[in-house]
Amino acid sequence: MNYRQELIELAVGARSAARVLATVSTETKNMAIAAIAQALEENQQQILAANAKDIAAGEAKGLTKALIDRLLLTPDRISDIAQAAREVIELPDPIGSVIRGSKRPNGLQVNQVRVPLGVIGMIYEARPNVTVDAAILAIKSGNACLLKGGSEAFETNLVLSQLIQAAIAPYIPQTAVNFIAYTDRAVVTALIQLHGYLDVVVPRGSQRLISAVVENATVPTIETGIGICHTYVDASADLTMALAIVENAKVQRPAVCNSLETILVHEAIASQFLPQLLARFTTLGVEIRGCERTQAMIPVVPATAKDWDTEYLDLIVSVKIVADINGAIEHIFQHGSKHSEAIITNDFANSQQFLAEVDAAAVYVNASTRFTDGGALGYGAELGISTQKLHARGPLGLSELTTNKYQIIGTGQVR
Amino acid sequence: MNYRQELIELAVGARSAARVLATVSTETKNMAIAAIAQALEENQQQILAANAKDIAAGEAKGLTKALIDRLLLTPDRISDIAQAAREVIELPDPIGSVIRGSKRPNGLQVNQVRVPLGVIGMIYEARPNVTVDAAILAIKSGNACLLKGGSEAFETNLVLSQLIQAAIAPYIPQTAVNFIAYTDRAVVTALIQLHGYLDVVVPRGSQRLISAVVENATVPTIETGIGICHTYVDASADLTMALAIVENAKVQRPAVCNSLETILVHEAIASQFLPQLLARFTTLGVEIRGCERTQAMIPVVPATAKDWDTEYLDLIVSVKIVADINGAIEHIFQHGSKHSEAIITNDFANSQQFLAEVDAAAVYVNASTRFTDGGALGYGAELGISTQKLHARGPLGLSELTTNKYQIIGTGQVR
Repeated sequence: MNYRQELIELAVGARSAARVLATVSTETKNMAIAAIAQALEENQQQILAANAKDIAAGEAKGLTKALIDRLLLTPDRISDIAQAAREVIELPDPIGSVIRGSKRPNGLQVNQVRVPLGVIGMIYEARPNVTVDAAILAIKSGNACLLKGGSEAFETNLVLSQLIQAAIAPYIPQTAVNFIAYTDRAVVTALIQLHGYLDVVVPRGSQRLISAVVENATVPTIETGIGICHTYVDASADLTMALAIVENAKVQRPAVCNSLETILVHEAIASQFLPQLLARFTTLGVEIRGCERTQAMIPVVPATAKDWDTEYLDLIVSVKIVADINGAIEHIFQHGSKHSEAIITNDFANSQQFLAEVDAAAVYVNASTRFTDGGALGYGAELGISTQKLHARGPLGLSELTTNKYQIIGTGQVR
Repeated sequence: MNYRQELIELAVGARSAARVLATVSTETKNMAIAAIAQALEENQQQILAANAKDIAAGEAKGLTKALIDRLLLTPDRISDIAQAAREVIELPDPIGSVIRGSKRPNGLQVNQVRVPLGVIGMIYEARPNVTVDAAILAIKSGNACLLKGGSEAFETNLVLSQLIQAAIAPYIPQTAVNFIAYTDRAVVTALIQLHGYLDVVVPRGSQRLISAVVENATVPTIETGIGICHTYVDASADLTMALAIVENAKVQRPAVCNSLETILVHEAIASQFLPQLLARFTTLGVEIRGCERTQAMIPVVPATAKDWDTEYLDLIVSVKIVADINGAIEHIFQHGSKHSEAIITNDFANSQQFLAEVDAAAVYVNASTRFTDGGALGYGAELGISTQKLHARGPLGLSELTTNKYQIIGTGQVR
């Protein structure tokens, strides 16, 4: 089936909503968001019933327990989603803020002002809370959106989007939020080729989804890439701190993009640090895959070349001994995904070199990479972590869902 | 021929230069730029000889006079290019500036810092000064670049790029600037598909070039689009000011993207304004193409539907009478290219409505759209005007050739 015409109609409807949203007051946008939160709580039974269909279908299809868990909604999880929505009400509205402004010598007043992007396409998988998060962040930043969720969550997403549309109708146009009620791959291809109708597409999900979007999109894209994150334990590191940080980065939530995949260890402290690491990670149930030099010091699974380029998303970590900070930086350059990288050090020069030379969305000194998150960094809710350099690098929060307009006020100036 | 492998080698060389450039001092970058300016002046004869070959080839191929003029270098034009380079030395270095920073409640210091994009691909046509402009803006913003110029300027670009590489060698790696010495279309396709090797591609040239890049690129792209710019003369406008502004916007330099294509005239002042416009534009040699209502008031060429979507780049203007500001805004929504749009008015509410509701890179009140230019707006030299919303909208200056990195300093924080 050719979805292009149908998607164009959705996008045109979204554009007309976007024109209204661009100049709507913060108060109105907040009322729409509050109405969504309330609708989720009031229609819990309807959401749970739809979710039960998705869960049953997922079990019949033999989805893994982890995937089923990502799909599953409970009364508590619905409350959490509503609560997250209410937190967005509290965030400052980015629209209308003056990024920079000046009076030119000829008297022209030039202001660079934050405005909405317009119409955003979101393509995502599994987790149904993304439907609500995306809609709310889009509304708060003055954008309309087209949402394409994963087939596993179809029934849940459909009900959520219907509740959202009904909830916002008294405040902003319903077509501000559009759910694409198809599940095949052709609709994704059609969506990402709506150049001129969408202002940006944000894919959020597996590497395969993101690559397919990057390969085929004609609409500008923000990639929310994978995280192959390293922590380098320098010779000068406080080893107690280092252990606590790598434990947190690996264990606290291993299935997320800012968790740790590879520990790089300075050779001068390897013989002291690695036995402590082994003891700690054995207790925690973490499998260690080590380079040859690591294998000579502690009993580990031998790491293969593939390990250095793998995002485990699991209780597995690879360990490599390096000669010095330059070896660590070079390994990160070769194998990192430019997401989050950390050094544990007490050497000032090394801290500065690491901050300057490592090219990633977030670079840490003496802290866990798990902080790469809009909320944790103090910027509030986000749609994902961008690992590309264009437009937004790091958390995709409200500010990152905007563009700018130059407003230029004159009294008849000509060139 | 398959250029991919050769371009990958260039890009890998550029990447290694980019790693050096990312942390080089402003002073060093400025010395490299000064050396380029000096090399251009000292090797004027060599440049002019190469340019003469391009001009001869262009004349043999039957290029238009306008194109030949865009290709042509003279001693004065070479001095202008060198002078433009020296002006970039005076511009502030964007790298290292802290965009925002805060201390989190847990003690983490979070700084969002400006860093270079990395490796930039530039694809451009005709004008050989772009080779120098692009190289200098890339260097100043800490980026390496791959330059693909138009075939018409091949000999000139080749000599310019050789002079640039020799000039910068004492200061920064030569592979910071790479000229792609092929002229066929396959090399453009290969270049824009170097995902993972280039951080961004900037096409600058005809709509055909830009569309081809947007359709086929896997590397993120910044579109420097065409300008279908409108000036709306409101009922309350000072007609003397309006005449001066539309004259400037149309006539001062008709072949550029921020020049005027369509004048929208409020019906209440049309009978007073149009005869003045006719008199002024007839004197200036500007052809007027009018809507039906315009035709009824002054002798003009009838405008067809196509006129409203045409970037004339010539001494032609289209005129349409509209019922009010809403009619003007709607016409701009339907036909504008989101570049530069102006209202001439003395009505405060209308000025605010126009600024808020017109969606374009630059929106003017009582000034000529010709000011949409990095230098004119006070931001210095630029690579073009972006009409897309992602990353950079408006002048692509030094700041717009950067991205950010979050630098996060802790004392052992974990989640």
